[in-house]
Amino acid sequence: MNEVVLHNYFRSSTSYRVRIALEMKGVDYAYVPHHLRHGRHREPGYLAINPQGLVPAMIWNDGTMIAQSLAIIEFLDETIAEPPLLPSDAAGRARVRMMSQMIACDLHPVNNLRILSALRSRYGADDAEVADWFRHWVRETFGPLEKMLAESPETGTFCHGDLPGMADICLVAQVANNGRFGVDMTPYPTIRAIHDRCMEIPAFVKASPSNQPDTE
Amino acid sequence: MNEVVLHNYFRSSTSYRVRIALEMKGVDYAYVPHHLRHGRHREPGYLAINPQGLVPAMIWNDGTMIAQSLAIIEFLDETIAEPPLLPSDAAGRARVRMMSQMIACDLHPVNNLRILSALRSRYGADDAEVADWFRHWVRETFGPLEKMLAESPETGTFCHGDLPGMADICLVAQVANNGRFGVDMTPYPTIRAIHDRCMEIPAFVKASPSNQPDTE
Repeated sequence: MNEVVLHNYFRSSTSYRVRIALEMKGVDYAYVPHHLRHGRHREPGYLAINPQGLVPAMIWNDGTMIAQSLAIIEFLDETIAEPPLLPSDAAGRARVRMMSQMIACDLHPVNNLRILSALRSRYGADDAEVADWFRHWVRETFGPLEKMLAESPETGTFCHGDLPGMADICLVAQVANNGRFGVDMTPYPTIRAIHDRCMEIPAFVKASPSNQPDTE
Repeated sequence: MNEVVLHNYFRSSTSYRVRIALEMKGVDYAYVPHHLRHGRHREPGYLAINPQGLVPAMIWNDGTMIAQSLAIIEFLDETIAEPPLLPSDAAGRARVRMMSQMIACDLHPVNNLRILSALRSRYGADDAEVADWFRHWVRETFGPLEKMLAESPETGTFCHGDLPGMADICLVAQVANNGRFGVDMTPYPTIRAIHDRCMEIPAFVKASPSNQPDTE
């Protein structure tokens, strides 16, 4: 068995998701930083590991490379039983995946660094326009997510019941990202409360962008 | 038990994914079209069903609403055993989820209708610029996906082994979308071959955008 390796970047919110899951599952791992703004993830050495040239990518202890944060989290959950990151019933799992994917498919990708950079290079978007774009897509997802969380009897102290799981992981990483673009969190009291409860858990704190080897 | 309902739109590639899965699993369902270009998905009646106001959303036969195409597909796979849409081993499942999410997280969302519309309204992008944007992000994901598929011994006649599954579903729906924007598919022989094999399967044909009640 080799050491588990996580190719990542302190500020990447998809990396943050995986770090939380690794901490919750108690997995020791080697932290390999790739500075996204310096293009370190597009160098041949890394492309040979992950052809997509994105972070995060995890090398499991048998040498298996897994990219895509939600695929990694589900793998960890299937491989290490405790604590569970998804509920045991199919409908509950669907609800957690739905909320996770609302952030992971509809929100985060369109606000990712590479998209914001493309808006600057293709359309000359300035800082204010980039921030406005970012905040617009946050509202498009956080509005409905707040409503779903606030109105469902399945919401507990966390997104689904009273244990933190995959949806909470996605929520916390996105809230951290929002802070960098001045998103007004006032309209989202349920999201804020869940975020604050998560940040009382050591795994979430230890995995946060401010506590990594490459934190600037 | 009520009828299964799928809120969707013929041209939506995320709707297409779910339709393929429903056909493969042999689920009869009521087709409720929402014309995205006419804003039918943002009307109060639909927002009361799915607060996100996006398609697809499935109402299962017990009344459970599930949005997000991959969450729906995983629910169907956990609820109806045959044919399996994900492999039985954790590493195989991770590989299928990784390839699915490369399309569902990194490619499709940034080329979605609402993003292309935002490029037009915010930056005055014309048809040629929108098509260039679309093709750029296809290359960013299809390049590495082609490499992963071509070089892995785990690739079979389909993305993972010799049975079609969730990754093939995502691949086919994306290839259909590519056709609308003149994407050059020459650099992707493995993807093309898998696509063509899928299109020999009745479920993929029956679910395709050209064969729906609201097809224009």
